[in-house]
Amino acid sequence: MSNLNLLAGWLKEKQADAAFITSTENVFYLSGFHSEPHERLLAVLAFPADEPILICPQMEVPDAKQAGWPYEIIGILDTQNPWERVHEALKKRNVSIHTLAVEKEHLTMERLEGLNSILGQPSYISAEEKMRQLRMVKSESELAIIKEACRLADYAIKIGTEEIAEGKTEMEILAALEYQLKKEGVSEMSFATMVLTGENAASPHGVPGQTKVKKGDLVLFDLGVVVDGYCSDITRTVAYGQISDEQREIYETVLEAQKAAVAACRPGVTCAEVDLTARNIIRDKGYGDYFPHRLGHGLGISVHEYPSLTEVNELKLQKGMVFTIEPGIYVPKKAGVRIEDDLYVTENGVEILTKFPKELITL
Amino acid sequence: MSNLNLLAGWLKEKQADAAFITSTENVFYLSGFHSEPHERLLAVLAFPADEPILICPQMEVPDAKQAGWPYEIIGILDTQNPWERVHEALKKRNVSIHTLAVEKEHLTMERLEGLNSILGQPSYISAEEKMRQLRMVKSESELAIIKEACRLADYAIKIGTEEIAEGKTEMEILAALEYQLKKEGVSEMSFATMVLTGENAASPHGVPGQTKVKKGDLVLFDLGVVVDGYCSDITRTVAYGQISDEQREIYETVLEAQKAAVAACRPGVTCAEVDLTARNIIRDKGYGDYFPHRLGHGLGISVHEYPSLTEVNELKLQKGMVFTIEPGIYVPKKAGVRIEDDLYVTENGVEILTKFPKELITL
Repeated sequence: MSNLNLLAGWLKEKQADAAFITSTENVFYLSGFHSEPHERLLAVLAFPADEPILICPQMEVPDAKQAGWPYEIIGILDTQNPWERVHEALKKRNVSIHTLAVEKEHLTMERLEGLNSILGQPSYISAEEKMRQLRMVKSESELAIIKEACRLADYAIKIGTEEIAEGKTEMEILAALEYQLKKEGVSEMSFATMVLTGENAASPHGVPGQTKVKKGDLVLFDLGVVVDGYCSDITRTVAYGQISDEQREIYETVLEAQKAAVAACRPGVTCAEVDLTARNIIRDKGYGDYFPHRLGHGLGISVHEYPSLTEVNELKLQKGMVFTIEPGIYVPKKAGVRIEDDLYVTENGVEILTKFPKELITL
Repeated sequence: MSNLNLLAGWLKEKQADAAFITSTENVFYLSGFHSEPHERLLAVLAFPADEPILICPQMEVPDAKQAGWPYEIIGILDTQNPWERVHEALKKRNVSIHTLAVEKEHLTMERLEGLNSILGQPSYISAEEKMRQLRMVKSESELAIIKEACRLADYAIKIGTEEIAEGKTEMEILAALEYQLKKEGVSEMSFATMVLTGENAASPHGVPGQTKVKKGDLVLFDLGVVVDGYCSDITRTVAYGQISDEQREIYETVLEAQKAAVAACRPGVTCAEVDLTARNIIRDKGYGDYFPHRLGHGLGISVHEYPSLTEVNELKLQKGMVFTIEPGIYVPKKAGVRIEDDLYVTENGVEILTKFPKELITL
C-alpha cells in the first residue's frame, strides 16, 4: 500500500477532512518529490477518499511530474497568493474542511494564519506522530537505497583509515576523505563528518580541527552519506600505533556491547531491551557513567527518526525498521570509542547494512 | 547602540510588551550565541525596558556564557516543560504580556500553542521585518568578519581556477577546491559550491556533476565561505582554451554591466536604479531575456538577506549595507557567464570586498 494510502486511512480513522503536510521530508515521503523551496510554499494536501494535491512553486512543476507525481499540482507563481490558489482548488472539488491534520512542529504561524483565512478556524490535529510511525517501517525499495548509502559509508571509512598518518590533522583527513567521496559522485553527507583523534575523541562534543594524529591515539570517524534522499550513518574507531591496555579494554567493552545489542534485535523485542543489553555490559565493566547517550536511532529520509533506542522506550521492534546501534565510552583525557552500525529488522533478526570490520584495527 | 537596544527601542515604539525571537540567525544576531538546537527551544526574550533573557538547552548554558551573554539564562532540561520555565521567569519579574512580537515565518504552531498556554491569548505582531532591517546595516565588527570571509572566497576561486584541466570533472575540481579550504581550517561553506562547465554553466539551474571540462568551455564558480557566522558569496567565470567571439561578447557584456552597477552604488541611490544600471546594458546588447534573476542580494548571517536588488525595489542604499552584485547571461547550449562581487556601502560609494580579478582569464 502506498504511503499516501496509509495516510488517507489514518485520516478516515481520525475523522479528519484533510492533511496539509509541509515539511520537505514528509512531502518527499508522500510524493517522491524532493524540494527545498525555503520561504515558498510546498505541501501535500491529502484527503481520506479524494485524490491528493501537490502544491509547489510554479517553476518546480516539471520536476514534480518528473519525480512521478501523477495527481493534481497547484503551481504557484511568486506574484500569487498561495492561499487563494488552495482555496479555489478546494471550492472546485466541493471540499469543506472542519478538521485538518498538520505538522504542528513545522507549520509556521504565518501559514497557520493563511490556512485560517481560507478555512475559517478549523480544528487542527497533529500529523507528526503518525508520519513518524509511517516512515519508521521501510519498504523494499527504501531499503535498497539505504543499502547503497551504507556501502558508500563503508567506503568512506576505508578511505579515512588509509589517510591516517603521523602529524596529519583531523581536518586534513576529513578533507581527503570527502574529496574521494565527491570524486565518486557523492554530493551530500548525512551530517557534518567527524574525524576526532586522541583527547578530542574522548569528548562527546568534540569537533574536528587542527589537532594532529599521534602514535597511541584512538581515531574516531562518524559519518554518513545521502543517496537519493536517504541517509546512512556509521562510526568506527581505530588505533594509530600501540595503544594502552586501558584503551584496549575500553574498545573491547564497546565492541562486546555493540555485538550483544545487535544479536538481541528481532521483531517483538523492545527498544529498551536492546539498549539495556549494551548498557548493562558497559555498566558491568564500570564504564556506565561514560556512556551518556542512547544506544541508537532510526534513520531514513532523516538521519534521526523513529525508533529511538533508549532504556525507557517500550516500543517493540518490527520487520522493516532501520536503525543504528552505537554504544560509546568516553573517558575524558583517556579514550573515546564508539562503534556504530546500521541495521534492518528482518523476519527473525536483523541484517547489518554497514559492513566495515569492527575488530580493533591498529595502523 | 547594541542590537538588543535597537530591538528594545522598536518594542517601545510599537507598544509591545516583549519579543520572543527563536530563529538561530536572529538569536545569534541579538546574543552573539550561535546554536542549532533543532527541536529544542532556543529563544531571546527581549523587553522594551527590562534586561533580556536567553532560553536554551541546559547543556548549552556554558557555551552561551562563553559567547558573551551577560544577562539571565534559562537553561532547560530535556525532562522539563520549557513553557513552565518561561512562565516562572515572567512571574518572578512581574511582567505581563499582552502584545508579543514573534517571527511569524519561523514560530511553529506547537510553540504558538505553548506561548498561548502561559500568556492567555496575547496579540501577536511580526518581528521579522524589523529584524531584517536591523540586520541589513552592518557594524564595523561585522564588516571585519565579512572581509575575512571574502578573502577566503577569493582564495577559493584562485584554487578552483588552478585546478581546471582537460578532462577533469566539475566534481573533481569542486572536491579539490573544498579540500584546500578545509586544510586552511574552513569548516563551512555559505551554500553548496557550484562548479559548472560548458552547457551546464549555460543553465541557471545547473548542478555540478560528472561533466568534464573541455577546450572552449566557460567554467563558472559560485561559492562562499562562512567565517564566525557570516557568509561571503562570489562568482567568477573563466575561459578554458580559446572561446568563440559570441562567448567573449557575452563575457564582456556581463563585465561591463557588473562594473557599471558597482560604480552606480552610493548612499541614496535605490536598489532599482542599481539593478537597472546593469539590466539596461544587458538589454541594450540584446541579452535581456537571458538575465532572468535579480541583480543581487544582501548578505551577512544569512547568505540571502536584505536588501534585495531588483528592478522594482525603491529602497535606498545606506552606509553599512553589504550586498552582492551579480549580473549573468545564460544562453542555452552556448554560454553561461556570471560575475559576482560582495560590496560594502561607504559614506560616498562602495568598497569591493571580493578582490579576485574580473577581466577575462583564459587558461
